Order: sequence, then structure tokens, then C-alpha cells
Amino acid sequence: MPHQLVLLRHGLSDWNLQNRFTGWHDVDLAAGGIQEARSAGRTLNEKGFVFDRAYTSLLKRAIRTLWIALDEMDLMWIPVVRDWRLNERHYGALQGLDKGETAARHGEEQVHLWRRGYAITPPALEETSPDYPGNDPRYADLPRERLPLTESLKDTVERVSECWEECIAPEIRAGRRLLIAAHGNSLRGLVKLLEGIGDEEIQELNIPTGIPLLYELDEALNPLRHAYLLEATAEVATST
Amino acid sequence: MPHQLVLLRHGLSDWNLQNRFTGWHDVDLAAGGIQEARSAGRTLNEKGFVFDRAYTSLLKRAIRTLWIALDEMDLMWIPVVRDWRLNERHYGALQGLDKGETAARHGEEQVHLWRRGYAITPPALEETSPDYPGNDPRYADLPRERLPLTESLKDTVERVSECWEECIAPEIRAGRRLLIAAHGNSLRGLVKLLEGIGDEEIQELNIPTGIPLLYELDEALNPLRHAYLLEATAEVATST
Repeated sequence: MPHQLVLLRHGLSDWNLQNRFTGWHDVDLAAGGIQEARSAGRTLNEKGFVFDRAYTSLLKRAIRTLWIALDEMDLMWIPVVRDWRLNERHYGALQGLDKGETAARHGEEQVHLWRRGYAITPPALEETSPDYPGNDPRYADLPRERLPLTESLKDTVERVSECWEECIAPEIRAGRRLLIAAHGNSLRGLVKLLEGIGDEEIQELNIPTGIPLLYELDEALNPLRHAYLLEATAEVATST
Repeated sequence: MPHQLVLLRHGLSDWNLQNRFTGWHDVDLAAGGIQEARSAGRTLNEKGFVFDRAYTSLLKRAIRTLWIALDEMDLMWIPVVRDWRLNERHYGALQGLDKGETAARHGEEQVHLWRRGYAITPPALEETSPDYPGNDPRYADLPRERLPLTESLKDTVERVSECWEECIAPEIRAGRRLLIAAHGNSLRGLVKLLEGIGDEEIQELNIPTGIPLLYELDEALNPLRHAYLLEATAEVATST
């Protein structure tokens, strides 16, 4: 029996609608995102998936996505681990800014670099900013040197790798079926690790929102296959 | 600074409406119960309460109550521990039965004994019953001898005590502010422990649904005071 892992990217948030950089800002799901989460949960339920444990970030758009999906699967009782290392990439001083205005001010090319340059960080926050994680009680237990003022995709991948090695991979090896509800860039990090995708290539990988992404892994946690799970199709075998 | 602990009993469920014995049967909140949870969360939020961690049972009426309250407080990110020992008292073979019919069949006095005799257990389930916890994946990790076929209030208090000693009390001693969303009888157990209430007396204590019950505890976790927190009153000091 291969190991089963399902990744789920949260859907539309209020700031997606407003075309603003979000990062660690704790924006809620928009109505459309709630629908996406419900559809994802329904799909998993219809296909007979069951999970032993779930992982998510400390951000409510991922947590709410997970809650809705668990509710649809009648799995509200499974343990849920919230780990900051699954948070979206920190976008530094860009957080909250309109993407269009930012492009007009700094140029399309600069914004593209900030968004897609693997090791390039957007401008850093000041520690006095309300968006600095050191001013948010949810990160109070973290050592100061772990709190980002900005992050490159590389920084995000590194913390995701740490979470994978310390927490997620041991759980999968122990035979637990995990559901991970997280964000575009933290899930990019997981897929990069699983598939061994290169630094340049990973920037081009876009994981769709609200569509469960199933991985089947061998004993060494190498992927045997992966598939997006779509509602009302029968192409993917269930886990039962 | 005294320690702060808040207990919250879930509100109206579908089986409350139908006047049926519920116990460990995983019935959802009714619309009225959702309203009670929202009101409880709003009250806690208005009074400035903050929590570091939450505890709940493995039953969705308590978990949903907690989720709604955490959402109202913007605390969806705090760690949540689900512990079966905070489940409602197991009502044995009475689970699912109509309370009126049960009284008609067995007599009011017998039903009163089952419901209120401290060490009296209702008729036991068969292990073949779908309601037997051994047939439910959420209890799969528990040793068989821990799985109840029925429980007296005494049995419930004993498992709640174990959860208190092993998990909850150490967290409070470590300075964590806890919110516990649970059930009529498991919360009776906690209040019995905290207040040293006698076996007979505790049966008469009814904790209202959906009203947060604040305890302030000294260093030895003895209660200094307790208060029900009501919306739009200023009689209770906030924790901030």
C-alpha cells in the first residue's frame, strides 16, 4: 500500500479580489473561497478519502479551508496541527499594496523578479510595522531570528523543508494519512521537495486553488503518482 | 495574577430538539446552538478575553461550538486539543431513544436514577451496536478496556479527572489561558474537581449552555472566584 498525502491550496480571499499582495497578512476567504473549500471537501468525501490528521498554517484562509473540508468529510474530530512554517511566503513591505500600483511604481520587470526570482526578496518590513510577525501574538513563541521581515521563495522552501523533515514525513512514515491545507508558495515548497523540482522550474509551477492534489508515495516517500481530484470524475482510485 | 480558565458548554443540538438521549452519538448543533456559540464567542471577544490554547471533545457539537467561538474572537490560529475524555457521558443503550418514551416504558423513577444516580449506569450497549465506540475510527487508538459500553456520572468524572491531571492542569500551571468547549457532564466533572463538590450535590448542578463560565484560580489551582459571562454587562473584569 503506497502512502497517501493530499495537498489543498486555499481559494479566493478578500485580498485576491482586491488584487493586493497578501503574504502573512491574515485575510479571510471570500465567498468564492468558501465555495472552493466546500467543493474540495465534497470531492474528497465522494471519493472515499479518510484522513488521520491534518496540517495547516497559522493563517485563517488556510485554517478555514481545512475546517470546511473536514466538515464536509465528517472528520471534524481528527487532530489538526497548525504550523507557521506552512504559512504563505512573507511578502515584506509589499504586503497590503495593490499589485497594479506596485507595478506602475516599480516597473513590471521588478515586480516579476520579486514574485518569481527564486532567491530574491521583496523590500523588507520595518520592525515597527503592524505586519511584522514580532508584533503578532501567534508568533510569540518563535525566536526572534526566525521571524521574517521579508522572504524569497527560497526562504519559504527552506522553512517548509524543515516542517516536512521534522513533522510531516515522520507522520507519513508512521502510516498516517495526512491532509495539508496551505498556500500557493508553501505548497510549491512541498511539491519541490517531493518531485525534486529545480529552483528555476518551481517558480513556474502553479498549483490550482481548491482542487485536492493527491500524492501516492513509496516507502522512501518518493512519489509514485499524483493527480488532481476533480468532482464527479472517476479517474482517480479511492484510498479505501 | 490568578490563572484564567473558561468553560463553555455547547448549545442546542438536533437531538435536544428531538428530546433524545445523545451521549457519544455525534449529533450536530441545531441552528439555535450555532447562535449560542456565536454569542458566547462575541461575549468573550467584547470582554477582551484571549486564549493560548483550547480543549474540546471528539464530538462535533463541542468542536463546532469551539470553532465558532474562536472565529468570533479571531483566534482560529490557537492550538486545539481534542480529547475523548472530555466527551459527554456515554448513555449506553439509551442513546438515540426518545426520553419521553423511555420514561413511559421504564418509569420516571428509573430514568431519573439513570440520569442522576451518581454511580448508576444505564443499560449497556452491545459491542455489535454501531454506537459502540470500538466501531468508530475516532477511538481506534484507545485500548479496548477504555471504551465504554455505558457510563455512570462517576465514570465520566473519573476520565475527566485523568484529563485534568495529565493535560489541563499542567497547561494552566505553565501559565496558559485555556478555553474548554465540552458537554454538560464532562464540564460537571471539571467543576466538581475545581470546587470539591460532593457526589450527590454535583448531580444537581446544571451548567447553562452557551454561557462562558470563567474561573480564576490561585497558584495551587484552587478557585478564587467564578462568574458566568453575559453579553453587554460590565460586571466581570476582563483578563487584559
